Amino acid sequence: MERIHTVEVGAHIGERIRVAGWLHSIRRLGGVSFLVIRDGWGTIQAVAESEAELGALQDSSIGVESVVAVEGLVVSQAQAPGGIELHQLQVEVLVPVTEVPPVPLNKRKITASTGTLLDHAVVTYRHPARRAVLRLAAGTMAGFRSTLTARQFTEIQTPKIVAAATESGANVFKLDYFGRPAFLAQSPQFYKQDLVGVLERVFEVGPVFRAEPHDTTRHINEYVSLDAEFGFIENHFTVMALLRDVIAGILATLNEQYHHELELLQVHLPTVPAQIPHIHFVEAQELILRRYHTDVRGEPDLSPQDERWLGEWARAEFGSDFLFVTGYPMSKRPFYTYPDPERPAYSNSFDLLFRGTELVTGGQRLHLYSDYLAALEKANLPVEPFEWYLEAFKYGMPPHGGFAIGLERLLMQLTGAPNIRLTTTFPRDLTRLTP
Amino acid sequence: MERIHTVEVGAHIGERIRVAGWLHSIRRLGGVSFLVIRDGWGTIQAVAESEAELGALQDSSIGVESVVAVEGLVVSQAQAPGGIELHQLQVEVLVPVTEVPPVPLNKRKITASTGTLLDHAVVTYRHPARRAVLRLAAGTMAGFRSTLTARQFTEIQTPKIVAAATESGANVFKLDYFGRPAFLAQSPQFYKQDLVGVLERVFEVGPVFRAEPHDTTRHINEYVSLDAEFGFIENHFTVMALLRDVIAGILATLNEQYHHELELLQVHLPTVPAQIPHIHFVEAQELILRRYHTDVRGEPDLSPQDERWLGEWARAEFGSDFLFVTGYPMSKRPFYTYPDPERPAYSNSFDLLFRGTELVTGGQRLHLYSDYLAALEKANLPVEPFEWYLEAFKYGMPPHGGFAIGLERLLMQLTGAPNIRLTTTFPRDLTRLTP
Repeated sequence: MERIHTVEVGAHIGERIRVAGWLHSIRRLGGVSFLVIRDGWGTIQAVAESEAELGALQDSSIGVESVVAVEGLVVSQAQAPGGIELHQLQVEVLVPVTEVPPVPLNKRKITASTGTLLDHAVVTYRHPARRAVLRLAAGTMAGFRSTLTARQFTEIQTPKIVAAATESGANVFKLDYFGRPAFLAQSPQFYKQDLVGVLERVFEVGPVFRAEPHDTTRHINEYVSLDAEFGFIENHFTVMALLRDVIAGILATLNEQYHHELELLQVHLPTVPAQIPHIHFVEAQELILRRYHTDVRGEPDLSPQDERWLGEWARAEFGSDFLFVTGYPMSKRPFYTYPDPERPAYSNSFDLLFRGTELVTGGQRLHLYSDYLAALEKANLPVEPFEWYLEAFKYGMPPHGGFAIGLERLLMQLTGAPNIRLTTTFPRDLTRLTP
Repeated sequence: MERIHTVEVGAHIGERIRVAGWLHSIRRLGGVSFLVIRDGWGTIQAVAESEAELGALQDSSIGVESVVAVEGLVVSQAQAPGGIELHQLQVEVLVPVTEVPPVPLNKRKITASTGTLLDHAVVTYRHPARRAVLRLAAGTMAGFRSTLTARQFTEIQTPKIVAAATESGANVFKLDYFGRPAFLAQSPQFYKQDLVGVLERVFEVGPVFRAEPHDTTRHINEYVSLDAEFGFIENHFTVMALLRDVIAGILATLNEQYHHELELLQVHLPTVPAQIPHIHFVEAQELILRRYHTDVRGEPDLSPQDERWLGEWARAEFGSDFLFVTGYPMSKRPFYTYPDPERPAYSNSFDLLFRGTELVTGGQRLHLYSDYLAALEKANLPVEPFEWYLEAFKYGMPPHGGFAIGLERLLMQLTGAPNIRLTTTFPRDLTRLTP
C-alpha cells in the first residue's frame, strides 16, 4: 500500500491507509496502546486494541524513535489529537531503536539546556518545536526570494573565498589557498554592487563569515545573509521602501504557509505599517534628551539602550514595531557609503530597528569612480586590493543601494528566542565547531 | 516621468516614455544618431534626428557605458531591432564615461580570451551573451527549488566551516578557527542526511569547496552545489526517478522563463525522456567490449572515453541524451554508500551521464548505525570525528538517498561552454582569487 503523509490522513476517513515515520510516543493503558507516529510533516495517533496489533513493538525494548510503518483504518475521534486516529493496526518496525534519546522528544515542550540542545542538534531537531525553527528559516528564505523575484531581481551566487577582506581587515577568517593567503567573505557587498552594473537588481542568500571573538547571545561566526542591491534609486529612501516590502513579504509568506509552525512556537508576527516611520540620527539623539533626559548628542553611534528607547517611542507614537533610523554619521559607516549631500558628515544610510533592536542595515552607496578613490584615500586604504571591484565604477554605475538581513537574527527576534544559537541551524561560535 | 524597463517599451507605442540604463552603442550617420540603451533586462534603439536631441552626448568624448536616461516617443519601425524605437529624444547623462571598456561590449559576439573575460568579469558580464549565463544560473536554481518545493522538500542551510573533512582528508581547505584547525565543507552530505531524520525531504543550494590541485577546463575549487536528500525510499531507483523530475523541472523553467537567454546563446535544450534509460556498471563494461572492442572489465571505474561510448550508445539505442549508470563498485564510492544487497561488491549508487559526460552523482546511503560502524572500520576511519553525524543513525533513520548537481558543470554542459570558468560567476582556481 502506498504511504501517505500524516497531514493527509484527515482526507481518508473510513479508509485503510499507510503512514510511515518515527515512533514519537507509545503509552500502554491496560490492554490498549496509544501510539503517535511522527513523519516529516506532522503526527498521527494510532490505537492498538490488542497486543497482537503492535507487531514487533510487542517487544517493549523497541522504543521511541524506531522507524515504523503503520497501516490502519482512519476513524474520526473527537478526543484524539487533530480529531482523527488509526484503528485496526498493522505495525511494521523498519529500524528498531533501543537507546533512549538524550532529550525527550515527545513532550509538548523540549526542556534541556541550550548546550544540550545544540550538542545533540541532529536528534533534538526532531522535536516539533525545534523542527519548526528550521521550517521558519525555509519560509523566510522563500519569502525573501519571492518578493524580490516578483520585482525582477535576479538571484546571484558570489564567491566565499576572497583575496582581501571586504569591510575591515580584522574579524576575518584566514585560509591557506594553495600556499597563498586568502579569506572567507564577510559579505557579498562588492560583488553584489558590481553586478548591479550587469543585472540592475540582484539578491543572494548565502553564508557569510565573521571572525568576531564575541561570546554573546547575539553573535555567531557564520550566518546566512539575505542580501539585496539595486540600481537607479533616488536615495536611501528608495532602498527603505523596498526593504519594507521585503519584510512584509517574508511575514506574509510565514503567515500564509507556516501557520502551524508559528502556532507551535506561539509566535504572533508583527504587522508592517504601509510606511515604516523614520527618524534622522540627529533628531533621534535630541528625542532621547527630551524624552529620556539623557544627553547622547555627539556620540557617533546609538547604544543598545538608545535603540530600546527609540523602539519604545515608535510604538507609543506610531503604534509601530518597526522604526528606521537614517543618517548615521559617515565616520561609523564603511567607505562605500553615500554621504548626505546636504550634511556630508552624515550618510544616506539607515538601520531598521525592530522592537528596539537593530535588525537590518542598509543604504545608498557611492557610484562615482572618483568618489571611491577619494573615499579610499580618506579611509587610509590602498587602492590596489580594490582594483577589480572599482573597475565596474570606472565604466559607469548608476545611483544604487541595498541592504543585508541576517536570517538567524531575524528569526531570533520574530520568535523571541533568548539566544541566536537557537535559530541557527548548526551554529559556529568561539568554541563550537560541531555538529 | 516614471522610468520603464526596455522590455516594456513595446506596450507603449505612440506614447512618450522614459528609459534609463547604459549607453550600449552610438553610431552617427550624417546628421542622424542611432543610440542603443541597455538596462538590466534588454536594449532599445533611440534615434536622434539632430545633434540637439543628444544633449550632453553631443560631447563625443562621452562614450559607451555612460549611464543615461532617455525620454522619447515610442514608434513602430520594422527595421529597428525588436521592431520599435524611440524618437524625439531628450537625453540626460547621469554618469559620463570617457574610458573605453577593456573588451567591446556592443558587438553581437564578445570576442576576448577566456583570461580577459574573467579578469574583467565585472565589466564583461555586461555583454548580453555573458549576462545570459548569470540569468541561466538563476533560472537553474529556481527550477531546482520549485521542483523540490512542489514535492514537499524543505530548504536548509548547513555550515561551511566544519571540524573535519567530509569525504576525504585530502582536497580540503584548511582554516585557522580561533587558533584551532577547521576546514571548508566539501559537501553538505552529513548534514543533509541527518536532517532527513527531521524533515524527511531536504535540499540546499550553497557553496562547496574542493582543494583539488587540478588545472583543467572542468575543475574549479569553489562551486555551487544543488543538493537533495530524502527518506523512505525503496532504493537508488527512487532517487533516480526524483533526479529525472528535477532535471526536467530545471529545463522546463529555463524553456519557459529564460527563452531570450537561450536564444542569445543559441542553446537548444535537450528533452528528458519520461524514463531515463539505465545500465548496470558491469553490463556497461561488457557493452563496451562487445560494441567498441575494448576490454575494460575489472576496472573499478569508468574512464571519460568509456562514458563517451556509453553516451553514444544511449543516443543510438534510446534516442536519449541522458543515461544512468548504476551499481558502481563499492571500492570507488564513499563509506556511507549502500551496497547492492544481491552483489555487495557493487553499490546502490549511480552516475547520470549527459551526452557522454558525468553530470550528477547520487545513490542510496547506509541507514543502520551498526552498518556505519562496520563501514568506518572497513575504510580504516576513526569513529570519533563522525560521532555527531552518527548520532542521527543511533536514533533511527529510514532508508534514504540523494544526489548533488554541480550548478556550473550543468550550465557548462547545457550551454556547450568550452571551460567551466565561463559558467562560474567568479571562478576560483589554482591561480585565480579575483575578481
